Amino acid sequence: MYVRVAICQINPTVGDIEKNYNKILSFIDKARILGAKIICFPELALCGYPPEDLVFQKDFITSQNEIIQKMSKNVDDYIVVIGFVEMKEDLYNACAIICNGKIHTYEKIHLPNYAVFDEFRYFKRGSRYPVFTTKDGFRFGVTICEDIWHPTEPLLSLTTYGNAQLIVNISASPYHISKPKIREQMLCTRAYDYSVYIAFCNMVGGQDELVFDGTSSVISPYGETIARAPSFKEHLLIKDIFVDETFLRRVHDPRPRFETPQMQCEKINLDIEVMSNSSRLYEESFFNFLQEEEEMLSALILGTKDYIQKNNFSKIIVALSGGIDSSLVACIAAESVEPQNILGISMPSEFSSQHSWEDAEILAKNLGINFIKIPIKNLYDLFLKELEFLFAGTKFSTAEENLQARIRGNLVMTISNKFSYLVLACGNKSEMSVGYATLYGDLAGGFAPIKDLYKTDVYRIAEFYNKKKGREIIPKRVFEKPPSAELRPGQKDEDELLPYRILDQILKLYIERDMPPSVISAITKVDAFTVLKVIRMVEQSEYKRRQAPPGVRITSRAFGKDRRVPITKSISYIHKF
Amino acid sequence: MYVRVAICQINPTVGDIEKNYNKILSFIDKARILGAKIICFPELALCGYPPEDLVFQKDFITSQNEIIQKMSKNVDDYIVVIGFVEMKEDLYNACAIICNGKIHTYEKIHLPNYAVFDEFRYFKRGSRYPVFTTKDGFRFGVTICEDIWHPTEPLLSLTTYGNAQLIVNISASPYHISKPKIREQMLCTRAYDYSVYIAFCNMVGGQDELVFDGTSSVISPYGETIARAPSFKEHLLIKDIFVDETFLRRVHDPRPRFETPQMQCEKINLDIEVMSNSSRLYEESFFNFLQEEEEMLSALILGTKDYIQKNNFSKIIVALSGGIDSSLVACIAAESVEPQNILGISMPSEFSSQHSWEDAEILAKNLGINFIKIPIKNLYDLFLKELEFLFAGTKFSTAEENLQARIRGNLVMTISNKFSYLVLACGNKSEMSVGYATLYGDLAGGFAPIKDLYKTDVYRIAEFYNKKKGREIIPKRVFEKPPSAELRPGQKDEDELLPYRILDQILKLYIERDMPPSVISAITKVDAFTVLKVIRMVEQSEYKRRQAPPGVRITSRAFGKDRRVPITKSISYIHKF
Repeated sequence: MYVRVAICQINPTVGDIEKNYNKILSFIDKARILGAKIICFPELALCGYPPEDLVFQKDFITSQNEIIQKMSKNVDDYIVVIGFVEMKEDLYNACAIICNGKIHTYEKIHLPNYAVFDEFRYFKRGSRYPVFTTKDGFRFGVTICEDIWHPTEPLLSLTTYGNAQLIVNISASPYHISKPKIREQMLCTRAYDYSVYIAFCNMVGGQDELVFDGTSSVISPYGETIARAPSFKEHLLIKDIFVDETFLRRVHDPRPRFETPQMQCEKINLDIEVMSNSSRLYEESFFNFLQEEEEMLSALILGTKDYIQKNNFSKIIVALSGGIDSSLVACIAAESVEPQNILGISMPSEFSSQHSWEDAEILAKNLGINFIKIPIKNLYDLFLKELEFLFAGTKFSTAEENLQARIRGNLVMTISNKFSYLVLACGNKSEMSVGYATLYGDLAGGFAPIKDLYKTDVYRIAEFYNKKKGREIIPKRVFEKPPSAELRPGQKDEDELLPYRILDQILKLYIERDMPPSVISAITKVDAFTVLKVIRMVEQSEYKRRQAPPGVRITSRAFGKDRRVPITKSISYIHKF
Repeated sequence: MYVRVAICQINPTVGDIEKNYNKILSFIDKARILGAKIICFPELALCGYPPEDLVFQKDFITSQNEIIQKMSKNVDDYIVVIGFVEMKEDLYNACAIICNGKIHTYEKIHLPNYAVFDEFRYFKRGSRYPVFTTKDGFRFGVTICEDIWHPTEPLLSLTTYGNAQLIVNISASPYHISKPKIREQMLCTRAYDYSVYIAFCNMVGGQDELVFDGTSSVISPYGETIARAPSFKEHLLIKDIFVDETFLRRVHDPRPRFETPQMQCEKINLDIEVMSNSSRLYEESFFNFLQEEEEMLSALILGTKDYIQKNNFSKIIVALSGGIDSSLVACIAAESVEPQNILGISMPSEFSSQHSWEDAEILAKNLGINFIKIPIKNLYDLFLKELEFLFAGTKFSTAEENLQARIRGNLVMTISNKFSYLVLACGNKSEMSVGYATLYGDLAGGFAPIKDLYKTDVYRIAEFYNKKKGREIIPKRVFEKPPSAELRPGQKDEDELLPYRILDQILKLYIERDMPPSVISAITKVDAFTVLKVIRMVEQSEYKRRQAPPGVRITSRAFGKDRRVPITKSISYIHKF
């Protein structure tokens, strides 16, 4: 006897409840045609995730509750599991379990309030542990995202006390490098520990700085992944699960017998049958995990594409310097919109090398995007002339360097305003970390696709892109020239502080692992004084990052919602090395 | 018999633990000389508030715990109550109660995680209810900020079960309009409800967008304020409290007898005596609440001044347009640093009126600040010439308007980079709300003092400033001319949408009260279509606000940490009017 489960890995838009609802209906139709009995949608699928302070608007909430009511009228002999914001005496991050015209609910118990999450700000935590039993005796429990990351409850009670054969987990679990694997490893362990099937239904799509990778799956009570949806794409994943397998495995693994469940489960009967014993099983999909570079590139593209589309842009500007950062951003842009809707602009100054605009032009040609060139020398000279009465006798300084970057910023923004282009900024994480970027200059733009990609990873992903395309879209010379902002004669990034290879290592240990300077110094073999200098630069650049555009979160700790440090502060307490 | 209590309303700097510690020691010395027995400091006084993600750095935590240990060595026959981040098996927002070389602790129970607060992100909540008893029988409990905002626990247990005569509340309670009064009203009610003395010790000072007003106080068991510190200034408030008064009042108000305390208090003995029966009482200070305009102006000045000083700036640039916004910002600047360290820049374009730079120059003279004039016509013309090949045949649009603003932005930033000035941006809340502001143009700057002040309030505070100074620092004409960005011929702000008087009313109802359009329309008598248009403009400008500099929080819901909405979103769910 088996039950056919459908996992609808959809890409909703935050707040576009009507559009999301229509998408949900069309997935239900497809799943029905394929004979699915339990049809699952992600966490807050109806309103998109994270809705942030939109949950404080009453229309935002009531419209969802109305749609759930309306939806229930059309659901008969199957079960829909779908996330929404539930309004009772308070707000809950909830899940509707809709069956035969009736609506049951489950309220998320573990509200994440760390990293990029703020759920205690919005929701009251649930306290009910419902287990649903169909007329033909199939038992399942429902959990929402964070609930399943806890090794004990609610899984312990749902499986041991409630005797659930399947745990549905609906999620909006955001991506960072390797997250799909780390997450599935955890799910396999849970299924194995509690001898239970897990149907994991994750959201897919970009939402401001977050990107949800999908990678939904079905795990057997033996801890094996038996079906997996692709990453970074919408998908309908169908899988037949054998209901007896839970019991068969439980008697061989008696660990849960020694555990004490904390909560009594609420038993809820559903008046439909879901089991079948037809011998024609559904031929399920099985997608492999992406290799790391492919995974990162896909995240960058989906995050960028969704930012563009969901904000109703169709045209993109990228300032092309001939360097690796803007080259990669242009490639990402070209994967997100039609190349003919992209304008690449080269804005050489007197300090730009000949190869800079040449390489920019070659890249533009390779991508099939539009290309124009606006030299900034005249504007630069005129600015300096207008400021001569103040600047006379002073030395060339960062003021003159930033001025060039800001003239470029002004040019792209003016063109953007004139023709409704979205400007993509090209800063990478190494620059954003230590402040090698000009506010209102190269940081200008609506979205910064690679802001969470370290410089060394920019090279790695750019190389992968060329390889994937089977030709040198990004010219070889771009990889070979030493990184430079070209804002003064002979400037080279790596002369100023450290080679990126080493700098990035320090940054990762400090930003993503909170390591103290002494340990960073020991690991990287860079003297503690230099390490502390890097840390100071990171902390003193916070004001710049606060005014930078959002970009795709790729690492386990991105700037933005994920790392919240004051601008005003002293870090004099770091002194022990 | 009385006990002398000292409330040290100090202004710490986030992370500058050593400096804060020295300040704390000097306040203890002063309080000791004046005979205080219980000496209180604000919530997280040792590290500053809010430390945000700095709490994830181990040096940040251990240095505090070490200082508390060190401090305890010098405390003998008195009690110090001080907030710090406590490291045990987890992190706590805690309070050290130091007495005679020993350290006791209390851990905050109610962690705020709404509005500007994120405390569930950082801390584990406490579960202990200690009541401290001195050798001569005086009993007091300690609470931290949010703890006392709850009408029930921990106050109920501390007073009824624990029989505390005094509740010390140490806070970092941020300012918004009228908050000092609203807060004290609550404290008076608490003291009255539980027949207990309250010693309220609040932080003072600016920290990024927050400003703490201080306004510490002592409340009697009759619910009367018997001592109050000034707002927006450091202060040592000393007050003698009569220990018997709690019991005398309790027998007359038996309400607590009918309540059931939820928690058992932990009784902790302190081996010193604190009571005195000398007939020479301390002549306590009593400062009145500030009148509303004075309160708002003081918040703006302190927030701005502390941003400047704590970030080690000493020189300020303000772009003076001759309008009310930049005039007020220049006045705030002149109250924050020496006028000779301020540079006012007028940058007229061909669309600027004659009076614009004239008024700017008069203001600069009145304030005693430096003044220069850089016309932007040449730069504007050259930009347009360089873009002619793209723009030929297009109409004058926001592109040309924003270009002017961004040329100005570039000029002030270049001067700022050259001479290490901090640029103050002049945007107000009405503009920030509906997006009447140019990214990288007038929004450029390190700090935006009046970004949370509605346009109508800008006039009100500017008028108050002139009155306070007893002369027309801001020229009369500045108040009289119709508000205009002067970015095209004859432009007037109020022609574009609504008069500010009405617009501000709509904005307040929507932003601060989450009102739906139908209700806003009913209250303001503006048609629902126009109201919805304003709301759309607010939501569509989120990307600009995300890249705007921080500024002082003045209202009960400021943009920034206080209002967190996605950039990418649809608000199509708002349709019911």
